[in-house]
Formats: sequence, structure tokens, C-alpha cells
Amino acid sequence: MRNPLSEKVTGIKPSGIRKFFDIVSEMKDAVSLGVGEPDFDTPWHIREEGIYSLERGRTYYTSNAGLKELKEEIAEYQKRRFGLCYNPSGEIYVTVGGSEAIDGALRAMLDDGDEVIIPQPSYVSYEPCVVLANGVPVITELKEEDEFKLKKEKLEKVITDKTKILILPFPNNPTGAIMTEEDLKGIAEVVLEHDLFVLSDEIYSELTYGSQHVSIASFPGMKERTIVINGFSKSYAMTGWRLGYACGPKVILDQMLKIHQFAIMCAPTTSQYAAVEALKNGDDGVEYMRNEYNRRRKFLIKSLREMGLKCFEPFGAFYVFPCIKEYGMTSDEFAEALLAEEKLAVVPGTAFGSCGEGFLRISYAYSVEDLKSALERLERFINRHKS
Amino acid sequence: MRNPLSEKVTGIKPSGIRKFFDIVSEMKDAVSLGVGEPDFDTPWHIREEGIYSLERGRTYYTSNAGLKELKEEIAEYQKRRFGLCYNPSGEIYVTVGGSEAIDGALRAMLDDGDEVIIPQPSYVSYEPCVVLANGVPVITELKEEDEFKLKKEKLEKVITDKTKILILPFPNNPTGAIMTEEDLKGIAEVVLEHDLFVLSDEIYSELTYGSQHVSIASFPGMKERTIVINGFSKSYAMTGWRLGYACGPKVILDQMLKIHQFAIMCAPTTSQYAAVEALKNGDDGVEYMRNEYNRRRKFLIKSLREMGLKCFEPFGAFYVFPCIKEYGMTSDEFAEALLAEEKLAVVPGTAFGSCGEGFLRISYAYSVEDLKSALERLERFINRHKS
Repeated sequence: MRNPLSEKVTGIKPSGIRKFFDIVSEMKDAVSLGVGEPDFDTPWHIREEGIYSLERGRTYYTSNAGLKELKEEIAEYQKRRFGLCYNPSGEIYVTVGGSEAIDGALRAMLDDGDEVIIPQPSYVSYEPCVVLANGVPVITELKEEDEFKLKKEKLEKVITDKTKILILPFPNNPTGAIMTEEDLKGIAEVVLEHDLFVLSDEIYSELTYGSQHVSIASFPGMKERTIVINGFSKSYAMTGWRLGYACGPKVILDQMLKIHQFAIMCAPTTSQYAAVEALKNGDDGVEYMRNEYNRRRKFLIKSLREMGLKCFEPFGAFYVFPCIKEYGMTSDEFAEALLAEEKLAVVPGTAFGSCGEGFLRISYAYSVEDLKSALERLERFINRHKS
Repeated sequence: MRNPLSEKVTGIKPSGIRKFFDIVSEMKDAVSLGVGEPDFDTPWHIREEGIYSLERGRTYYTSNAGLKELKEEIAEYQKRRFGLCYNPSGEIYVTVGGSEAIDGALRAMLDDGDEVIIPQPSYVSYEPCVVLANGVPVITELKEEDEFKLKKEKLEKVITDKTKILILPFPNNPTGAIMTEEDLKGIAEVVLEHDLFVLSDEIYSELTYGSQHVSIASFPGMKERTIVINGFSKSYAMTGWRLGYACGPKVILDQMLKIHQFAIMCAPTTSQYAAVEALKNGDDGVEYMRNEYNRRRKFLIKSLREMGLKCFEPFGAFYVFPCIKEYGMTSDEFAEALLAEEKLAVVPGTAFGSCGEGFLRISYAYSVEDLKSALERLERFINRHKS
């Protein structure tokens, strides 16, 4: 029998996070600070709306782009929170999580050989999705000395004649870095100068601490060339509902929607009804969770620094990204030894790009009690391995 | 600003069904026999399980491949109903409807220029998904004189050195044709002889009337080279839940799962819990709906023939595909005139491939009362246009 597989797909490495958690799931008594999802159940009033829609028998397809009411609420939300004005009819469509929207945007925009700039460390899907869409990923390294922000000069260095899209992954998973209005200004200038497009993954936008998230789409001339990706998974603790959305110029959204229509049909109906409620009445819940994450963030940074770990202070998402270079181990070795010796799981920084070497991703989507118990294990480990 | 779009994607035509229903949705008093989804609400015991999972706060990601219990129930179901034995760990994964599985299989298996044979008339997604996955669609026409079955000799004619996959869309949307064990035997021989792979879309398998659905994967040597696509939308009236699955050789499923992991993450959690209940206790509901469709099918065929429409008797899905060639109009013209004059919407056969010219797709996923009222409009129309 001949080889059934696509050469291109076979060449894509599976996610490093997944490989690691396959090990963790088979280990008894293991404690994890590894996951990338909120530890909160979805707030009750949102679940209740999902339940209500099931009771009423709303179990049919919605239109391809999503419920009209949901698109209108998304438009209202984007305006209220980020000052962005999108027409619910044509400039917004509802997707199966942010993931589908990222994949869809790349498929709709890339031709063979188009280059996409991906700042790393960042979310594991960007690079494979670019490859799957026939594009060429061009990595630019985010550096700790830059607080893991994307700098204008670094961006300019990797732009070529073939560059088409810049992926802008802020607030960032795994570093927790954010980009302020001032930080984004220079980036927007470069994008405009080189006639690029931006895929701005703002899925963690509500988890910004001490300041308000700013979207690059809000800069003059940028809305026309930016696809904003957002969703309900992180802000509303709705990961399992698989609901996200894309906002952008109609000319691009039309093509993304065409792919969505053929490959997905529509986002889950129950989730769409629940999401309407989330946007209408969910602000308090979001604020409650944000405050809770912020408390843990401060506790975790303080604790890590007290035990002697060098740790950049992140102001977004729910991750910290401490440096472990002084322990004479690679990220993989450190994470594996920590799991073997203390049964504590964290994700090696290299899961998010090779420039994550020397760092670990620690999630604080855990209760303070769980964090405390995990930190005891970590402290024992680093005390033992101090040179 | 430069062109933001992929040339390839721009070249794909939007679905003809969608275009048509955009018109219908704006017309007052229009009656439709056009939709492709069950008119039943999801059975209550299945919805109840979804509700229960929400009450318990099961709002988190599942593993990428889906809930273990669901994969086990799918394995049990495929064995019980179709005699197919799949290992739930590695040979089955859960997708966002059958659509995602089709798209995923093509992405996982095709390299540039690989040819995929698509029998038409058939579901609108196959051709664009092949193009999106860098493949070359090769159309073979299903003929009314063959009862819209795929014939061995016709298949052999379109096979070339570049043929990699045969898409097998039975029970068929839009014709309602099925392939019996005897029909499939010859196809399996050709597939084996030419070392092809099969993407067998069996989403309508439970809606087979008067006989039992047979999967091509059950023939000797075929399981190793067949991806079986199935799901919950049609059999369990669960379209809005967006839940399907693929079964197949681990070597292919591993690559499909990798794409799924990056582009989708996991299927919706609530839907997965509900689907476990569907497979465990849903057989009676499936039988009830099948009997109901069968009753309507017979009524519709009889009525159409009585009013003088030539109509092949279909034994699968919930569509009939009458011939309208004698009315001197194209399918598009007929459907448009029918909508304009009688406010009755049906889908032109050409929405499913150019060889659908001269036919209409009429869905019987409507109550007998609705069918009756729609048929009155149709009869008035054809009496007026009889030459």
C-alpha cells in the first residue's frame, strides 16, 4: 500500500504541550501548573442560558456566520471595550474557538510562499497553521530584555518582499507580555509602511492587569488591514463551548466565511445562545475572575522571586515565564526532572518556539491553595539543584 | 493596499444553496422544501444529558480526540450497526460535525496535484475542500439511468496515475441514492487494484429505507484504506450540536488529529456528553425518525409521480431528486420561477454539480402537512408550465 499521507502535514511536529501531558496523565499524584484554561466553571447565568436554549429545542444549525443577535452583541462589545466599530453583517463571524478563526484567516489570505511573521515564544498553533495554509513561517524572537514585547526594529529586520501577514499574539501565551498603545504605535507604522496585514490574536484581551487592552486595529489605517481574533474561552471561562469570532474587513471575512461554510458549517448553537448572555450580562463575572487572577499573579511572582527564580513580571493572560538558565539544564530537562523528582508538571518554554529555551511556562489558572502546594515542590527542587 | 486574499480561495464559488436561501430568507410567506436538516428537535433524553453536563459545570476542554467514553461508544456503535471494528484509542476521533472530518482527511492526505474523484451530484463541500487542500477534484457523473449509483466502469474511466482518493457519498445528498453490498463490491475491487484510498461519507447511514446500510470499509482489505465519516447531525437530529467523527487507520488518523489539535482543539464538550447518551439509548428515537421519514418519502414520491413529475425512487437520506427537463427551463430557472410565482423554495440540482442540471432537490425533512401545502404550489406551477 502506498503512503496515504501528505508530506507537508507529516512534517509538522505535534504540540510539545500535548506530548508532555500525555506523560503527566499517566502519573499518579502528579500536580500540574500546566494547563492553559481557566479553573473556573462557566458562570451560572451563562450556563443557564445554554440550558434554556436546549429546553426550548434550539438544536438546529444557525446561519453560517452565526446568530444575528450574537454578532450584534459582539459588535457592541468590541465598541464598548476597545473602541472598534464593526458591522455585524459582514465584518464579524462566529467560529469554533479562536483556533478556527486563526486557521481560517491564514487559509483565506495566503498563497504559496507568502511569508508570515510569527513572534515567539507564542501559542503553538500559529506555525503549523501557516504551513498548512502553504505559507512560510518567519520567526522573530521576543526577548526577556524587551519584556517579551515585539520591537519595531526587530520586526523590520525580518520583513522581506514576500511578507504578507504579521501575527500579533498579545496578551501573550506563554510569557504574559502585553503591548501598550505606545508599544503598538511603532508596529502599526511598520505595518502600514510595508503594506502588511495583521492577524491580532486578542483572546486574552480581558486578562490584562493594571491597564486596558489596546487593539492595533484601533490605530488609523489599521482596521482595514487587521483581522481581530477573540472569543469566549478565556474571558468567560468557556473553553469547552468552543466559541470564538473574527472581526475584520468584509473583503477578507467573506473568504474566511466561505471556508467556514464548507469546512465547519456553523459554530455550536447552544454555545451561541449562551454567548449572547455572556456579552449582555457577563461583565461582572469577567471582572471577578480578572481580579482573582491578578491576586494569584502577584502571589506567584513574589513567591518565585523569593525562592530565587528570575522572573519577568507579566501583565496579561494567566502565565508567568520564569528563567531557569542558571540551573544548567535545558527547559525540557528541567521540566522532566521536576516531574520525575517532585511530580510537578510545568511546560518547557521550548514548547512555544526554540527561543523559549531557558524558560518555563507556569499557569496561575489554579487556586492559591494549589499554587502554594505546587510552589513547595518547586522550591524543594530548585534548592536541591542550585549550583 | 495590496490584495489581501489567497488566489486559490477567491476562485472557489460560494455554495449555490446558500445563495438561494439568502433570497428565500428575505421573502415573506415563502414555503421551503429546501433545508438539509431534520425537522425534529433533538430527542429530549439527549438534550437532558447536555443540560445535566452544564449543570455539573462540565465546561472545560476535553482531550483533543474527544471524551474516552464517547470514543468507546462510537466503537461499540460502529461494530453493532455496521460490523466495523475500530480501536477507540487511535482509530477514532471526534470532530465538529462531519464537515470538519472531511476537510481534515483531505488536508492530512493530499499533496499538491493529487487527484480526488468526486461523484456528483453530491454534497457541496467536497470540491472546495479538495481545492483548499491543494488537491485536484476529478468529477465523475452519477446518472439517473444508474439510479445515481457509482458504477465500476465509470470509476475506472477517471482513474489516472495521480488519483489518490475516492470520495464515496452514500446515502447520497441530494439524490437519495444508496449503494448496496453488491454495488460496493465492484468499487472495492477497483480501489484495491489501483491502490486508492476512500473517504466514505456515511453521515446519512441511519437514514436507509428497506435495507441496512453497508460500509465499504467492511470489505476485505478496505478498512486499511478507508476513512469513515459519520456523526450525529442527521441520525439523531443534532445538527446544531456540531458533532461528528472519523474512523480509520491510525497512521492517517494521527495526522488528522494533529490538524484538529492545532485548528480546532476539541469538539464542543456539552455536545460530546449528549452524544454519549445518544449512542447508549438513542436507537428507538433513530428508528422512530427513520419510519417517519420513510412515510413521507413514499408520500412524496407518489404525489410527485401523480402530478406527472419523473422521479427516481431514492432509498436513503431525506431528499428526492425529480427530473424537470421536460419543462424547457434550466434547474436554476425552474427554481427561480417556482419561488417567484408560487413562493416555494427548492434547491436547483446544479447546486450539487453541473451534472445536476435538469433536476431539483426536494427535502422531506418537513411534516406531511407542510409537504402537502408545498406540493399544491408545485402542482399549480407545473400545470401552468406544461408544454
